[in-house]
Amino acid sequence: MFVGVADMAMWIRSLGAERVIDELSRTIEEDFGRWPSFDLVPRLASHTPIGVIELMPTSDKELYAFKYVNGHPSNPARGFQTVTAFGALAEVDNGYPVLVAEMTLLTALRTAATSALASRHLARPDSARMALIGAGSQVEFQAMGHRAVLGIEEVSVWDTDPGAVAKAVRNLEALGFRVRAAVSAQDAVVGSDIVTTCTADKACATVLFDEWVTPGMHINAIGGDCPGKTELDPRILRRGPVFVEHPPQTRIEGEIQLQEPDFPVTELWQVITGAASGRTAAEQVTIFDSVGFAIEDFSALRHLRESARETGHFTEIDLVAEPEDPKDLFGLVGAPAPVS
Amino acid sequence: MFVGVADMAMWIRSLGAERVIDELSRTIEEDFGRWPSFDLVPRLASHTPIGVIELMPTSDKELYAFKYVNGHPSNPARGFQTVTAFGALAEVDNGYPVLVAEMTLLTALRTAATSALASRHLARPDSARMALIGAGSQVEFQAMGHRAVLGIEEVSVWDTDPGAVAKAVRNLEALGFRVRAAVSAQDAVVGSDIVTTCTADKACATVLFDEWVTPGMHINAIGGDCPGKTELDPRILRRGPVFVEHPPQTRIEGEIQLQEPDFPVTELWQVITGAASGRTAAEQVTIFDSVGFAIEDFSALRHLRESARETGHFTEIDLVAEPEDPKDLFGLVGAPAPVS
Repeated sequence: MFVGVADMAMWIRSLGAERVIDELSRTIEEDFGRWPSFDLVPRLASHTPIGVIELMPTSDKELYAFKYVNGHPSNPARGFQTVTAFGALAEVDNGYPVLVAEMTLLTALRTAATSALASRHLARPDSARMALIGAGSQVEFQAMGHRAVLGIEEVSVWDTDPGAVAKAVRNLEALGFRVRAAVSAQDAVVGSDIVTTCTADKACATVLFDEWVTPGMHINAIGGDCPGKTELDPRILRRGPVFVEHPPQTRIEGEIQLQEPDFPVTELWQVITGAASGRTAAEQVTIFDSVGFAIEDFSALRHLRESARETGHFTEIDLVAEPEDPKDLFGLVGAPAPVS
Repeated sequence: MFVGVADMAMWIRSLGAERVIDELSRTIEEDFGRWPSFDLVPRLASHTPIGVIELMPTSDKELYAFKYVNGHPSNPARGFQTVTAFGALAEVDNGYPVLVAEMTLLTALRTAATSALASRHLARPDSARMALIGAGSQVEFQAMGHRAVLGIEEVSVWDTDPGAVAKAVRNLEALGFRVRAAVSAQDAVVGSDIVTTCTADKACATVLFDEWVTPGMHINAIGGDCPGKTELDPRILRRGPVFVEHPPQTRIEGEIQLQEPDFPVTELWQVITGAASGRTAAEQVTIFDSVGFAIEDFSALRHLRESARETGHFTEIDLVAEPEDPKDLFGLVGAPAPVS
């Protein structure tokens, strides 16, 4: 099975992006709920001065998934995307690949699905207003994810790029949201129950200050996702419990990279299984320091495989050679030999 | 660019497997000649009781390649191949993938090309007869590779499976070789200048005994390629200099896994650059303990990309999302939004 960009887009359109994000968040929840059954292999990175190329594998002993992903901050200025991704899913039982898929779109969906999942477990159930700091590729998916799981209808948007804000307002209004283009980040945050920071700043920037954070707020910090890239005023991390995907990775890549190595965190999967507490009071501030983890990509590929098989949005590619006689690989490429 | 099994087979047929192996051995020689310019990243393995799935990446800072490969010894009994592989090539400059290809066939070619390259540098130039111990998937490619680089026309073949021998004899005769079906491994080896062991035994077996090895012989040991899998009588490794691809990997996976950790070896790439000696006397026994290395896969993908581009044996797949506005990924999947 191959799901390219066109098939991926058609699959998403056929079900609706919001429904896909919603369903995907259930699949991620299911997989987070059986976290210990996964192999947590460290990602394999190849760094150059201009960017990084990474392979992110994981396996639950039944399926094996990996994602190829690059990060090249100078790409947009040259007409390329900063991040592109593709991945594959294989059967552990015989080692055969069963799915290759584009993952630029799919990663956007799984990121929104993970944020929505975190908000469902950590935000106040009566949350009604959401602020989006950063109006890039994630913004529409974030809004849809939060409407799907928490019924959020009202969003405010801020970005340093007015064109990006205009794009977000246009897209979000067309999706039926009540949208406010804020005049500043602070203006966007005022009165919000949930704040998602999803900026592309390539430095330890501060897009959200401690003074703006009010009791009961839930924060999804998703733009601080690699060494040297953070978004939050570090004081915010002292305001309430910090939830993460996989601590060893988040301590290197997340907001907590600027904190001491034993900064206390709670693993989101343990909140899902009930092994750890999530929000314990309405006035509590909760922070999800999200960097994106291999299991989310695994869930996304697993979900895609099942769903696209039903909707038919895939093509077949011949990735595995199948000689009739497994010892006669040459037979696939040689001149037909006379049978002796 | 996507090169599936059908395109790969057509590419190989269009040029002829022997020519492809010959050209590929030149590309590998070129890349081995600039060995220090490569990132030698350890492979990333995911083991289960039933098999292994590995990712093998490398990069020369211009191109990045990785191979996905599985190894499942119990597969043939269930109608699957033991090993299947696919891989990708990407531009380091922007991180975009440029080629995805099946690599089951391609790996067979690069393995034969590497053996032929080693024999060209290590075997006696007047070598005329070759013994092939193991008549599985590699046997025809090995013979062709050696004919291409050393003019070998005369081969003897042995395998414990008579059906595999019959297949090899049939295919090799059709290719114009003078072929002898040996009655034993020893019978195959007698009078040979070059011996290639390419069996699939999943244990520390001995398919070649020290007593059979005669002065001046060159041995390509390619079937001993993972922990617990060797083919040679260990005494053979004391008969002459042992050449390897990448010592840290070969000490774990190759014939020398049974030797002391500092067993002396010479790196093949240093023979190619002239930094180390290869064969120094006609009566010397030389041994290439080959396990297959990521740079060979890199060379194979790089070579395929250039050659298949010329022959047109590829299809286009849409692996990379290209939104018109890089910040409007949603535009690829959302309902068309009215322009405000």
